[in-house]
Amino acid sequence: MDNADAKKTYGERFRADMERCLAAADWGPQERVALACRILHRDGHDSALAGQITARGERPGTYWALSFGLGLDEARSSSVLLVDDALNVLAGDGMPNPGNRFHLWIYRARPEVNAIVHTHAPYASALSLVGEALEVAHMDTCVLYENCAHLAEWPGVPIGDEEGRIISEALGDKPAVLLAHHGLLTAAESVERAVVLAFYLERAARMQLRARTVGAIRAVNTELAREARDYRGSDQYIAATFNYLARCVVRETPECLT
Amino acid sequence: MDNADAKKTYGERFRADMERCLAAADWGPQERVALACRILHRDGHDSALAGQITARGERPGTYWALSFGLGLDEARSSSVLLVDDALNVLAGDGMPNPGNRFHLWIYRARPEVNAIVHTHAPYASALSLVGEALEVAHMDTCVLYENCAHLAEWPGVPIGDEEGRIISEALGDKPAVLLAHHGLLTAAESVERAVVLAFYLERAARMQLRARTVGAIRAVNTELAREARDYRGSDQYIAATFNYLARCVVRETPECLT
Amino acid sequence: MDNADAKKTYGERFRADMERCLAAADWGPQERVALACRILHRDGHDSALAGQITARGERPGTYWALSFGLGLDEARSSSVLLVDDALNVLAGDGMPNPGNRFHLWIYRARPEVNAIVHTHAPYASALSLVGEALEVAHMDTCVLYENCAHLAEWPGVPIGDEEGRIISEALGDKPAVLLAHHGLLTAAESVERAVVLAFYLERAARMQLRARTVGAIRAVNTELAREARDYRGSDQYIAATFNYLARCVVRETPECLT
Amino acid sequence: MDNADAKKTYGERFRADMERCLAAADWGPQERVALACRILHRDGHDSALAGQITARGERPGTYWALSFGLGLDEARSSSVLLVDDALNVLAGDGMPNPGNRFHLWIYRARPEVNAIVHTHAPYASALSLVGEALEVAHMDTCVLYENCAHLAEWPGVPIGDEEGRIISEALGDKPAVLLAHHGLLTAAESVERAVVLAFYLERAARMQLRARTVGAIRAVNTELAREARDYRGSDQYIAATFNYLARCVVRETPECLT
Repeated sequence: MDNADAKKTYGERFRADMERCLAAADWGPQERVALACRILHRDGHDSALAGQITARGERPGTYWALSFGLGLDEARSSSVLLVDDALNVLAGDGMPNPGNRFHLWIYRARPEVNAIVHTHAPYASALSLVGEALEVAHMDTCVLYENCAHLAEWPGVPIGDEEGRIISEALGDKPAVLLAHHGLLTAAESVERAVVLAFYLERAARMQLRARTVGAIRAVNTELAREARDYRGSDQYIAATFNYLARCVVRETPECLT
Repeated sequence: MDNADAKKTYGERFRADMERCLAAADWGPQERVALACRILHRDGHDSALAGQITARGERPGTYWALSFGLGLDEARSSSVLLVDDALNVLAGDGMPNPGNRFHLWIYRARPEVNAIVHTHAPYASALSLVGEALEVAHMDTCVLYENCAHLAEWPGVPIGDEEGRIISEALGDKPAVLLAHHGLLTAAESVERAVVLAFYLERAARMQLRARTVGAIRAVNTELAREARDYRGSDQYIAATFNYLARCVVRETPECLT
Repeated sequence: MDNADAKKTYGERFRADMERCLAAADWGPQERVALACRILHRDGHDSALAGQITARGERPGTYWALSFGLGLDEARSSSVLLVDDALNVLAGDGMPNPGNRFHLWIYRARPEVNAIVHTHAPYASALSLVGEALEVAHMDTCVLYENCAHLAEWPGVPIGDEEGRIISEALGDKPAVLLAHHGLLTAAESVERAVVLAFYLERAARMQLRARTVGAIRAVNTELAREARDYRGSDQYIAATFNYLARCVVRETPECLT
Repeated sequence: MDNADAKKTYGERFRADMERCLAAADWGPQERVALACRILHRDGHDSALAGQITARGERPGTYWALSFGLGLDEARSSSVLLVDDALNVLAGDGMPNPGNRFHLWIYRARPEVNAIVHTHAPYASALSLVGEALEVAHMDTCVLYENCAHLAEWPGVPIGDEEGRIISEALGDKPAVLLAHHGLLTAAESVERAVVLAFYLERAARMQLRARTVGAIRAVNTELAREARDYRGSDQYIAATFNYLARCVVRETPECLT
C-alpha cells in the first residue's frame, strides 16, 4: 500500500486499539477537576493560589470549581464547589474564586465548551511578557497548531466584566490562548482535552524559550502539522494521555479522589 | 452594573469571604520565622548558610532570628533565637548570625516594619550581577509593582555599620529591594507579607531571566498594575497565600513547628 | 614510559578491572527494555506517552516494545510486548504503538542493530526546533563524537512507510540522530549502548543550549575526542554506566522488574 | 566604633562563636570522602560515573578514593578504597578509577593539598565549552575570587601523564580550576574546603550562564571581594557549611556512613 494508505490503516487501527485496550475511567466532574489541578501542578503550573480550572455543571449556569485558598496540589474532589454565575455556592464547602468570573464569558460564547483551564504556568508566563505568540513547531505540541490565540494586551485582574469579554474575544473559536502578562487558558468540550492542551501549551512555551537561546525556530510544514494535530488530538489519544497523567497523581497522592 | 462597580463589588465580597472562610493561624513569632525559612527554602531560595529572616520582638531593640549554622530547611521554632541589637542572645539556644546586623538599620529607619526577609535566592542573585533592575510585568508579581528598589552597588559583607546604612537607604520607603551581587530583601509589617513578597520577587527574577532569552519585556499599564497590586496585596490575600505555603511545609516537614 | 604507553597500559588494565569487578546483570530483553524506559524517564526524557524503546526479538521480524498507553515511568518487564513487523502482538498483554513502525526500517537496514531508543527528550526537542546540529564538545558526550546524524526536515508523524525510510536514511550508519521538530534516536547492538547514547545525547543538547547563552561552542581536538569516544565507549564502560543507572531505578522503583 | 572596627569586632566574635557553638564532626577520611560524593551529587554534580573525589592517605603516596563503577550518590564509607600512586588497591574492596591518576600530579606539586574534588558538574561543564573563564561576582561565590584558574585547552582523557602535568600546571597555586570541555576541579588542605569550593564553583557557573541571558556581568570591587573571601572562607565558616551539607545527606541517606 502507498504511504497515505499505510498511515490511514495504522491510524484507524490505533484508535480502535485505544478504544478497546485503554479502559475509560469513570470519574465525576469533581474528580475530574481535582485530577486536573493535581496533574497541572505536578507538571510545574503552580503559582501559589493563582489559576482556576472549571467544568460546566449539568444545570445551565452552574460550574464546578476548586474552592479558593487551596493550591492546585491540595485539590480533592471534596474541595470542588458547584457555583452559579453570580458565584454563589450551590454545593460544597468553601468560597468561590472571583477569578472564575471571566470563565463565564467563555462558557456563554462557546456552548460546546464544557471545561476551562487557566493557569499562571511559569514558562507560558515568561513568554507572555515579551509580546511574542506561541510558536508550535514540535510533534508533541502540534495539538496546538493553528489552535493557540494570543491576547497581546493585558486587561488587568479578570474579576470584572470587561476582562471576561476581552479574554473571550481573544480566544475566539480556538481551544487555547496565551494571555499577555498573565498565563495560559484552554477551553474544550472535556476536562481531559482542556488539561492535555494546557499541559502541552506550557511545554511548548518552555521549548520555545530554550530554543531561542540558539536561534529562530523553524516553522513546520502545515500539512504535516495538521496531520499530527489530528493524530495526537483524537479523543482516544487525549483520553489515553489524561488517564496516564491521572494515574501518576493518584499513585502519588491518592487522597485527591476523596 | 458597570465594570468598575463589578470589580469593586466582587473585590469587596472576596475580601469578606477570605476573612470568613480562611481560618487565621495562631502562630507565635518563632513559628512564623521557622515557617518563613522553610517556605522560602522549598521554593528554591537556598544558598547553604546564607540568608536571614528576622522578626521584631515585643521588647524594643529585640529580634527573632534563626540560629546561625542551620540551613533554611533545618529551621524549627525551637531554633529561633531572641537577640538584642548588639546580637546578644536573650532567649534560645544557639549563636547569632552577624549578617543580621544590617537588619537593625532597617528596623530603626522603618518603625512600621516588623519582619525582614533576606535571601540569596538564585535567580535574584543571577539578575543582581548585571546591573539591571527587577522588571515587574506579570499579574502575580504586581505586588512588587513600584515596590522594588535597586541597590546597584554592592557594599560588601554586611556585618559592619556602613553596609546597614547603605542597604537601608537603598530600600527607602519601599517593601523590597534587589541587592547587587548579593540577593533580595523584603521588609513589611508582618512575616507573612515579607515572605510572600520575597516569594514573588524570586519568581519575578526567574521570569525576567527566561523572558529575556526571547526579547525585551513589555511594560504593563500602570493603572492596571496598581489595581492588581491592591487586589493581590490585601492583608487577606497575603495571609491566604502564606497559609497555603505554610500548610505545604507543615505537611512535608511537620517538625518545623517544634 | 611515554604518555601513549601510559594511556594504553591504564586503559587496558581499566577494561580488565571492569570485566573482573563489575558483575554483569543477567536481564532478559523485557527487563532490559523496562529498565531502559525507567532510566531515561528518570533523567528527564518524559513527554507523556511519546517515545518508544524497542529491542530485536530472537525470531527474525519480531521486536520487544512497551505496550502503548503507559508512560516510560510505568514500564515493567511484564508490560513489554513481543510484536511482529505488522505490529501484531505475539506475546504479552497490551496494545502496540504505531510509532514503532519506523523502527522496522532501521532494523532492516542495520542488521547489527539490536535496540533502538527514541524519545522526545525536552532539550533535544528544543534544540531540534532551530535547525542546528548537535555539537559534541564535552568529554562525557564524546561517545557521540562523529556519531550523531541530523535529520533537518521533519517528515511528520512516523506511522507510515515514507517516514521510516527517511529516518533510517538520515541515521545512515551512525548510532544516533537528532530528529528535527521531534526528538532523538539511538540505535546500537545492545539496549545498554542505545540507552547510554540517548542519555548523553539529551545531556549534550542541554549543555549546548546552556552554553550558547554565553557564546559559540569551541570545537574539541579530533584526535583527543576520538580517543575519549573509544575510552568511554568500550563495552565495559557502557555496561558499567547502564548498570549504575539501572541500580538507581531498581532501588527507587523495584516493581519495574516485575 | 568606626566601620572597619565594627567589621573586625563582629568578624572575630563570629569565628569564636562558630568555634564554640558548632560541634566539629569526628569523621575519618573514608567518611569524609563518602559525604563529599553525596553532598555534590545532591547539589546536581552528577554525570553518571564521571568525577572523582580523593583524599591524601596518612602514608606518603597513598590516597582515598571511591571505587570505580559507583555513582556519587552510591558512595559509602565502605566503598572508599586506599590506593597507591600506581593505583594498586591497598585497602578496601573494589577497583580503582584510572581517572584518579591526574590527581597524583597535583598532590606531588602541592604538598599542602590533602583533598581534590573533580566533577563534571553540568553548569561548569556547559560554561567550559565556550572558552570563557568563571566570573566571580556574587558574595556567596567570593570564596573563589582570584582563586579559580582556567585551563582553556582540553588535554583529553586524563589517564596518561601528560594530562596530569597540564592540569596541575593550569591549577598552579590556586585552589580551583575550570577545565575546558571537561568540568571543575578544586584542591585544598581539607575535604571540607575542597567540597565547599566545588559547591560554589558550580553555583557560580550556573549564575553566570543565567545572568548572561540579560547582559554582561559587572565586576565586584576587589577589596570588598577579598574581604568577603576571607569572611566566608575562614576554616570555621567552611566547616559550618560542610557540616550543614553533610547533615542533609546523612538525614536523607544515612547509609552513606556505613
